[in-house]
Amino acid sequence: MKKINSMNPVKGSALAEGAVACPAPVSGHTSIQMAHGGGGRLSHELIEKLFFPAFANAALEERHDGAVLDLGDERLAFTTDSHVVSPLFFPGGDIGKLAVCGTVNDLAMCGARPLWLSAGFIIEEGLPMETLKRVVESMRSAAGEAGVQLVTGDTKVVDRGKGDGLYINTAGIGRLNRTGLVPSRIRPGDAILLSGDLARHGIAVMALREGLEFEGGVESDCASLVRPVMALLDAGVDVHCLRDLTRGGLATALVETAGTAGMQFRIDETLTPVNETVRGACEILGLDPLYVANEGRLIAFLPEEQAEAALETLRRFDETGGACVIGRVMREGSGTVTLKSAIGVDRVVDMLSGEQLPRIC
Amino acid sequence: MKKINSMNPVKGSALAEGAVACPAPVSGHTSIQMAHGGGGRLSHELIEKLFFPAFANAALEERHDGAVLDLGDERLAFTTDSHVVSPLFFPGGDIGKLAVCGTVNDLAMCGARPLWLSAGFIIEEGLPMETLKRVVESMRSAAGEAGVQLVTGDTKVVDRGKGDGLYINTAGIGRLNRTGLVPSRIRPGDAILLSGDLARHGIAVMALREGLEFEGGVESDCASLVRPVMALLDAGVDVHCLRDLTRGGLATALVETAGTAGMQFRIDETLTPVNETVRGACEILGLDPLYVANEGRLIAFLPEEQAEAALETLRRFDETGGACVIGRVMREGSGTVTLKSAIGVDRVVDMLSGEQLPRIC
Repeated sequence: MKKINSMNPVKGSALAEGAVACPAPVSGHTSIQMAHGGGGRLSHELIEKLFFPAFANAALEERHDGAVLDLGDERLAFTTDSHVVSPLFFPGGDIGKLAVCGTVNDLAMCGARPLWLSAGFIIEEGLPMETLKRVVESMRSAAGEAGVQLVTGDTKVVDRGKGDGLYINTAGIGRLNRTGLVPSRIRPGDAILLSGDLARHGIAVMALREGLEFEGGVESDCASLVRPVMALLDAGVDVHCLRDLTRGGLATALVETAGTAGMQFRIDETLTPVNETVRGACEILGLDPLYVANEGRLIAFLPEEQAEAALETLRRFDETGGACVIGRVMREGSGTVTLKSAIGVDRVVDMLSGEQLPRIC
Repeated sequence: MKKINSMNPVKGSALAEGAVACPAPVSGHTSIQMAHGGGGRLSHELIEKLFFPAFANAALEERHDGAVLDLGDERLAFTTDSHVVSPLFFPGGDIGKLAVCGTVNDLAMCGARPLWLSAGFIIEEGLPMETLKRVVESMRSAAGEAGVQLVTGDTKVVDRGKGDGLYINTAGIGRLNRTGLVPSRIRPGDAILLSGDLARHGIAVMALREGLEFEGGVESDCASLVRPVMALLDAGVDVHCLRDLTRGGLATALVETAGTAGMQFRIDETLTPVNETVRGACEILGLDPLYVANEGRLIAFLPEEQAEAALETLRRFDETGGACVIGRVMREGSGTVTLKSAIGVDRVVDMLSGEQLPRIC
């Protein structure tokens, strides 16, 4: 566990106490930048330097998609996500589907079967009632598909110009029947699997925002991964760790996981599938598909000899039908991820730096 | 359980499907008004007509501050609240303290000991880093006092002009060792206790917003009620139901609880304590203290013969030091709350109608 740092405690009324001494800025920034929410380096630093020291505890220290918690003889997973995607509706989904899938996926990544969700709505004054109804109906449908119940909620309304239509927070509780799937279980020699093609969500939202149309169109990959993950675990595959790819894309998820696990990964770029339309869109927009957001893709770390069985199980589901092996855990280390590029050159993969696609989820 | 209504299902891409048929508006409103988030009649209708039909399940149907859920041999409470208070800092607290206390109080109202919190931050671009640090430190302090751990979180950043500094969602999990405290356990003859004087939070925030200064000042009652509630339960008092008073004040909490319980309540206005400065402020601002927001007050329903023991326990704590009996459950009925006024006249108390104090929590 990390030591609680020595920031000035605020007792009673912060206002009444007057200003506290100005603390050291995070990454040299004295105010919040868009990139602090982008899922890349600045997000990572904000969490590591501000939130973790304040709330130090063992569950947080696992740095996973959710917290794994013991309650009597039961083991729970608990996670939360706020959703601020713009626009609210996009090809392949909407903020409601995203809010449910994002949270159930985080629970599934812990190896937990999602049971219950909460929903907190922050609505901007003037939002059409019909928009809210469509979003709620979409949440209902997504919750049904993932087998979770929405059991508690909250609604707040903010004045015009103090929101952007609708923000939704979902928190979720899942149940684990086994040891949690955590980065610390990753071992040298593990195969690294990817569940499908990259960058659909980011490109679908970005194309809509920029008014771009691509032949054939691009739909977000937004989906619940609960069914394939439960099937993988039920099939007895000894999965060591799962991680869903969201903001910051595959690259950021790999770098974060390698760092937490204290391992070195090697990925073969020619093995990472990207749809041709998506690849073309990335080229036009100047984006690297490795860093573009996904909302229905995962990576799995598991013993190499079980990779075939895992692929066979995942490929039985539409949402993970494109599963493939993309690389391997090389050895213990300081968390370097190496990418063998299409032309056979190795390069070191870094976390997303700055903000690539703001408000993508 | 309520029947799921027949709103148009949104399958796959809502966008690709085009507009769904325009559903019936809620309360004749075709768009969201500030009062839909005010905790009064419009909030109530939005929840009853839009959210409940979509997500029908037994936990929601209890209409309590949190959901009570069975997991193996364990019984959990689960709740969520988003916080959008403006300004972020006020006498007696800030958005961080409010976010922690609001959620642990909701768990305590279910009779649960709060264990774990999640926190979802929606930050407006440009928020001073120092402000965020003060809020986080305040959350750390409040969590420590309430004995809960913040175990998982999420950070999103929205563009300038699409937020208002900072919104915080907290969800919480608590553990119950007993039957949940729910409105359906309220019985005719139960005493109704109030834990302290009314309307401090609403007046403290409103005075700050309006630039009003009152002699002696008014501090928010914002506080964790976990310690006194746990003491009450540990003392063996057979509490039937607890409810904390937030948006909509005492009046709205009573009317909602009476409706859910199917009971008639009678309250004596002369027994409801209001601090003199707060009363004066209410008069100047044209507010009825019965409808003004509180953030550290509760009402308790319990057998009349146990009222003395309950008061004695509650009065041992600063945060519930002003506990008193304010009325009684008269009989089964359709949920009417009658108030005996200071001049001895009975009147029927209604839920807050419209928006009294926007963004008070």
